[in-house]
Amino acid sequence: MVQRSALLDSTFAALGDSTRRGVLARLGRRDASITELAGDFAMTLTGMQKHVRVLEDAGLVTTEKVGRVRHCRLGPRRLEEETRWIRQYQTMLEARYDRLGDFLERTPEELP
Amino acid sequence: MVQRSALLDSTFAALGDSTRRGVLARLGRRDASITELAGDFAMTLTGMQKHVRVLEDAGLVTTEKVGRVRHCRLGPRRLEEETRWIRQYQTMLEARYDRLGDFLERTPEELP
Repeated sequence: MVQRSALLDSTFAALGDSTRRGVLARLGRRDASITELAGDFAMTLTGMQKHVRVLEDAGLVTTEKVGRVRHCRLGPRRLEEETRWIRQYQTMLEARYDRLGDFLERTPEELP
Repeated sequence: MVQRSALLDSTFAALGDSTRRGVLARLGRRDASITELAGDFAMTLTGMQKHVRVLEDAGLVTTEKVGRVRHCRLGPRRLEEETRWIRQYQTMLEARYDRLGDFLERTPEELP
């Protein structure tokens, strides 16, 4: 449970940045080196390395160093836990609104 | 587009903390004051105020001050944009794996 929670912490936090979401979309088209990514996003190499590290720690990107070049590709995580969390949240939200609806419908007759 | 991006930044970042996700789950059961939330999560009032502020800025929690008490309830946002983003991401990921599969299947005949 703690493990799942730490997992959700790191993924949601990783997704909370438009550059990092952009990097994921970019890698969805084709694998890229950190240098290519830095170029595509008009960013310093150091800046892009930090973003990739965050994505890697969250399991959203895998990197591999070949010679002096670090290659990045998507995966292994597929955001399944995150989808489940959001779905549970929406179910809870609907139940909450339903209860509120019931209360409002019931109120005229039941209150003195 | 920028607006949608800023929205996703703030929600995903807000969700990237287990206490904040816990507060959402807690408010799903019943509305609560910040003092009650601080008690439930064994946290200082100031600490909880900061978490609630992040959730409020992301549109996940609405607060209302009545006298000296600040009441919190869920909403108005329902994570619909976030669900859409994750779904698009997963579609892209599947397409990526499919292309990789096609490539691996094709390779024996097509390469010399």
